[in-house]
Amino acid sequence: MTVNDAEHSAMRRAFTIALNGPRGVNPQVGAVLLSPDGRVLAEGWHRGIGTPHAEVDALSKLAPGAARGATAVVTLEPCNHTGRTGPCAEALIAAGVARVLYAVDDPGDHSSGGGDRLREAGVAVEAGVLRDDGRRLLDSWLTVQRLGRPHVTVKWAQSLDGRAAASDGTSQWITGPEARADVHRRRAQADAIVAGTGTVLADDPALTARDADGALLPHQPMPVVLGVRGVPENAAVRRHPLPYLQYSGDDLRAALADLRERGVQRVFVEGGPTVASAFVRERLADEVLAYIAPVLLGGGRLALGDVGVATIGEAKRLEVVSVERLGDDLLVVSAPRAAMAAAAPRTDHHEEGDH
Amino acid sequence: MTVNDAEHSAMRRAFTIALNGPRGVNPQVGAVLLSPDGRVLAEGWHRGIGTPHAEVDALSKLAPGAARGATAVVTLEPCNHTGRTGPCAEALIAAGVARVLYAVDDPGDHSSGGGDRLREAGVAVEAGVLRDDGRRLLDSWLTVQRLGRPHVTVKWAQSLDGRAAASDGTSQWITGPEARADVHRRRAQADAIVAGTGTVLADDPALTARDADGALLPHQPMPVVLGVRGVPENAAVRRHPLPYLQYSGDDLRAALADLRERGVQRVFVEGGPTVASAFVRERLADEVLAYIAPVLLGGGRLALGDVGVATIGEAKRLEVVSVERLGDDLLVVSAPRAAMAAAAPRTDHHEEGDH
Repeated sequence: MTVNDAEHSAMRRAFTIALNGPRGVNPQVGAVLLSPDGRVLAEGWHRGIGTPHAEVDALSKLAPGAARGATAVVTLEPCNHTGRTGPCAEALIAAGVARVLYAVDDPGDHSSGGGDRLREAGVAVEAGVLRDDGRRLLDSWLTVQRLGRPHVTVKWAQSLDGRAAASDGTSQWITGPEARADVHRRRAQADAIVAGTGTVLADDPALTARDADGALLPHQPMPVVLGVRGVPENAAVRRHPLPYLQYSGDDLRAALADLRERGVQRVFVEGGPTVASAFVRERLADEVLAYIAPVLLGGGRLALGDVGVATIGEAKRLEVVSVERLGDDLLVVSAPRAAMAAAAPRTDHHEEGDH
Repeated sequence: MTVNDAEHSAMRRAFTIALNGPRGVNPQVGAVLLSPDGRVLAEGWHRGIGTPHAEVDALSKLAPGAARGATAVVTLEPCNHTGRTGPCAEALIAAGVARVLYAVDDPGDHSSGGGDRLREAGVAVEAGVLRDDGRRLLDSWLTVQRLGRPHVTVKWAQSLDGRAAASDGTSQWITGPEARADVHRRRAQADAIVAGTGTVLADDPALTARDADGALLPHQPMPVVLGVRGVPENAAVRRHPLPYLQYSGDDLRAALADLRERGVQRVFVEGGPTVASAFVRERLADEVLAYIAPVLLGGGRLALGDVGVATIGEAKRLEVVSVERLGDDLLVVSAPRAAMAAAAPRTDHHEEGDH
């Protein structure tokens, strides 16, 4: 069975309307119902946890029986799971849908199997339609599904010899404007940005994503402070467009679980050596960004502290994903060897970096 | 006046026979004398300090008067300086040579000006013939002339976070076989290899250049030990094909001056954090090779120690010359900003790396 032009168009439309829904714990999903002759009957999308799934949303716009013989075009495999809402596979079967196309398999242990359920009920099913586009759309959500927690990027700037500052603590600017612009661009792609209280007290960072002129970029990551010390009344982070969250930092996994519940899929950790080292030590760094300035500093102000390695066999081994020149500086992007295969969005990079 | 084919051929021949002479304090120079109709009359080359220069060597092979009207093709500008031997410019004039072609200008304060002297005497002079090839031939010697000392490469291997070893001192192997092979290839291009006594006592390095099977490469760098502690009777460095030299390490410039006198043009420093830091601190590192393994170690075993930087304004600023992937590892080649323009062999790299 082939996928016709009307169906491809409907899938592209489904990708677009999926974005009407919020980025959060649940995936952004879009659905388009087509008549047998390829006319759009209805559209739907998922509006977040506790609300109808995209297929059900689309079906709800039709009179009873109007979907009989229709084709459902959905960005994600219809679920086979009775959660807060009933399983979409059953809803499609009950509505008399004759054919279902979807882009991405549902990776959930409980929710997957919708495709098989539909086939058992005699529905024609076409999986993997425009799959790559579908995966791009669900990139962060799929990663969260696989990791069971938000994706964590740990970033630091260092001299070539691994220092974050000179002996007297001065560090402005180790890296140049191109590197800093890259950091802000990546901050804007994250849902949360994490700094330790030590950094908040010492450097008073704004934890915003800004352009070269200092203006706020359209998307801002939620500021998160780790540590038990209080955030000063006049701290810049209190002027962030989003209210900050604070965790003690004793249990990073618990903090990440809470962030996930709040819809955070991508966490950008850049809050100083203590916090960076903690994420590395706990094996919670899915991506490491080392901005390396070609300077030598020596001394004891290290970009990374104790990462829990006592002997060489315990080394935290990474794989270089990419090396980029940013002005005078280098950006080395790496990922834990074990995580390379697991984390979806890095699969392409992996192949690129593998040699 | 143009340079004809016979003259270009003669210059290429001069490059070849120059290599008959030793690499040392004096440059390797070749000379070919051509008759007015382009036949080779004689060839000569410089055999090292205290022996005739190439032009004089070539002239000495002809009967008196036989060079009258000839063309002298020389790889380096004929000298204008009465040192251990008489000035070549005068010798060429006295022999009645009508035309002189040379590739590279003499950079010496005392010895340069030979071209002008020849012109004053009515000799036709063509400078810069196949200049780039000539510079390649004299690369190391020209660098020594400009720096006033041997060229120094400082190399270390480090984790991404700047450590040379794990906390317990274990480090084998931080970098992989491709990086190690690259180090051996570069050792073979050096005239001397430097290690501190600390490294000699701790790691017992052979300080040889070897292939992947451990066999010695054809050219071996002279082993040099820095420090006052004795080299053990059974140390591997005592089995090096060349006898080792030892300096106290208190005065690196004096050690380099002595090495220069011994004909050393390229020094490869890889003898541990103390020695590497000393060369960086003294601004004697013309080229820095950081072999970076994508591992994180933390802890206190740093690849570089005190480099004399107390505050960020004193940072030893480098320029990245190249970044290369070697297996899983990276090689970042950099050079001091100030030295970029000064050191001849890096001029091309500079342009490449400049962006």
